[in-house]
Amino acid sequence: MCRQEGCFCFALIKEIIKDVFVCLIRESGEKMKKFINSPGMLETDTNRGLQLAYPKILRQLPGCNIMVRQNLKTDRVALVFGCGSGHEPAPNGYVGHGMLDAGVPGRIFSSPTPDKILKGIKEVQTGAGVLCIIVNYTGDVLNFRMAMEMAQMEGIAAESVIVADDVATQKSKAMGQRGLAGVVLIMKIAGAAAEMGTDLYGVKEVAEWAISGLRTVGVACRPCIIPSDGQPSFELGETEMEIGMGLHGEPGVMRCEMMSARDTARQMLDLILLDCNYVNSEVVVLINGLGGTPIMELYVVNEFVHEYLNQQGIIVYDTMIGNFMTSMEMGGFSISLMRVDPQLKALYDAGAVTPIIRR
Amino acid sequence: MCRQEGCFCFALIKEIIKDVFVCLIRESGEKMKKFINSPGMLETDTNRGLQLAYPKILRQLPGCNIMVRQNLKTDRVALVFGCGSGHEPAPNGYVGHGMLDAGVPGRIFSSPTPDKILKGIKEVQTGAGVLCIIVNYTGDVLNFRMAMEMAQMEGIAAESVIVADDVATQKSKAMGQRGLAGVVLIMKIAGAAAEMGTDLYGVKEVAEWAISGLRTVGVACRPCIIPSDGQPSFELGETEMEIGMGLHGEPGVMRCEMMSARDTARQMLDLILLDCNYVNSEVVVLINGLGGTPIMELYVVNEFVHEYLNQQGIIVYDTMIGNFMTSMEMGGFSISLMRVDPQLKALYDAGAVTPIIRR
Repeated sequence: MCRQEGCFCFALIKEIIKDVFVCLIRESGEKMKKFINSPGMLETDTNRGLQLAYPKILRQLPGCNIMVRQNLKTDRVALVFGCGSGHEPAPNGYVGHGMLDAGVPGRIFSSPTPDKILKGIKEVQTGAGVLCIIVNYTGDVLNFRMAMEMAQMEGIAAESVIVADDVATQKSKAMGQRGLAGVVLIMKIAGAAAEMGTDLYGVKEVAEWAISGLRTVGVACRPCIIPSDGQPSFELGETEMEIGMGLHGEPGVMRCEMMSARDTARQMLDLILLDCNYVNSEVVVLINGLGGTPIMELYVVNEFVHEYLNQQGIIVYDTMIGNFMTSMEMGGFSISLMRVDPQLKALYDAGAVTPIIRR
Repeated sequence: MCRQEGCFCFALIKEIIKDVFVCLIRESGEKMKKFINSPGMLETDTNRGLQLAYPKILRQLPGCNIMVRQNLKTDRVALVFGCGSGHEPAPNGYVGHGMLDAGVPGRIFSSPTPDKILKGIKEVQTGAGVLCIIVNYTGDVLNFRMAMEMAQMEGIAAESVIVADDVATQKSKAMGQRGLAGVVLIMKIAGAAAEMGTDLYGVKEVAEWAISGLRTVGVACRPCIIPSDGQPSFELGETEMEIGMGLHGEPGVMRCEMMSARDTARQMLDLILLDCNYVNSEVVVLINGLGGTPIMELYVVNEFVHEYLNQQGIIVYDTMIGNFMTSMEMGGFSISLMRVDPQLKALYDAGAVTPIIRR
């Protein structure tokens, strides 16, 4: 606000110097407020640290971050899921009995490459075939399709299901709806079906049935910092939030001032209920923290979610609350509803032994 | 840097107005970047939201935030733990089979009051007595002692153990070492012993045995915002962190520039290993996020922790990684080591069904 020319220039130069300095220390990878070693080693360190914590459940393929379960199946359908790193504990926290056979992480916020996916498929495939679970992002869909084609050329029966649970993205867009945290529920359902010995088309069918009744919407209030350049994944005002924002900061449907947990959750549930009629249905509720929002706030959100669903005549069968699919330290959460019938309830309740989900 | 008087005044006034404005919107409780309803309702909403998510495990006592397990014991030692709110999922996320019989939360960062603790004790007590687990803070110790005296006057056999696992606080101070996330491991050990039918003095003895081999140290890089006044719990520079900081922002042992995950963890482990000799011992490792640090970074930390312990001739029996005892959205983590022998391993591995820990 100082209009005196000399003063303004001095301020400007100081700002520029500060920006350059901040960029420099950020690029060193050490002065971001992240406990990491270097941006280049982040995916490797992350997955090695995960495997070391769960050696009875996870086996890491040498020289890459692909994780497969110990005690591989020999005769039942294998399940493969992959997504960018930065969404931990996805994908590798869901590898284990009753869920994934292989998890394939890409670089930070990047789809795994087709050769990596193929490697995962080949490692876990049995004569019973492989089902790939894909979240609906252009890169993920293309890379998984390419990997599946290569697998099929090698005689492996590979099928896929696409999870596109985000109601905040318009169906009319070319790519359709994005995939969000609801994919964790689909891994649970499909994993249980595969574990029970259902055949490839049966597992695919029940996963698609679960997907048809699955909806998610997210909200964000703070960006994460991208490790490679030290820049925030998006910009939001000091008191702003955005409903419908994607896991990588993709635009949502409403940017507004922070609201109470109740008002935020009501807006989000209304978006879901406008898209799918759950009245008189039983649902599983998944309240997913994005990484930087504490579980206390997720409990507060859940209090209203239960009250509101009850008012709407929707019956909660079970609730999962935690950080299931994050965007590093991003602030915010998502709400997912999945309709369940007796078959889906049995699969949802079936045993699982993974780093994150145990039944 | 503008020295022209009028300009300086204008800048100063603008800053003051901005500060007042930020304070005002923070005090309304709505414009902090927290998904809550109001600071006054926060503890109530949190615990109601938790109970609604786990109705088969938790029963909430009417009109308060005390949680007791469904299917109360009738003939075995009961376990009670309490701490301030803001540390979710502690205490109530650990209520259930194999761990706590009652959890008693206080207000944000405040010990539960003696009457609340007494209420919890009376609700779950059986003829076999009650063991209270206390984290070593002045308020917690005083309030629990008062509650136990009142319980004893009513003929209830009440004993306690105090967890003081923080190696960053000097033993020479009057209060001794603080209690940190290691208490979660003590709840697991004592809960399993009680579930197996061990008597009151036996449960106390095994808990004290576990405590004798338990050490923790924390690090913080970002404060949380106290909901009642919108102020940060402490101040840290833009690139600073503090090793040894307590869960409520109590001073640590070293404030310094952000270091790599490896260097940070090495400093922390050295503090632990200076205090307790674990060479040739088996240990359980607990890597606890403080709420705002994503699980990805905890995995990165774990990678080095395993490497370093291995170098030191310390054998990792098992690893727990997650947000077990937080300070709302505070950034940072703690590392705990607990020495285990065959008896403690059996108790650590024993079945548990709580919202957070399932075996």
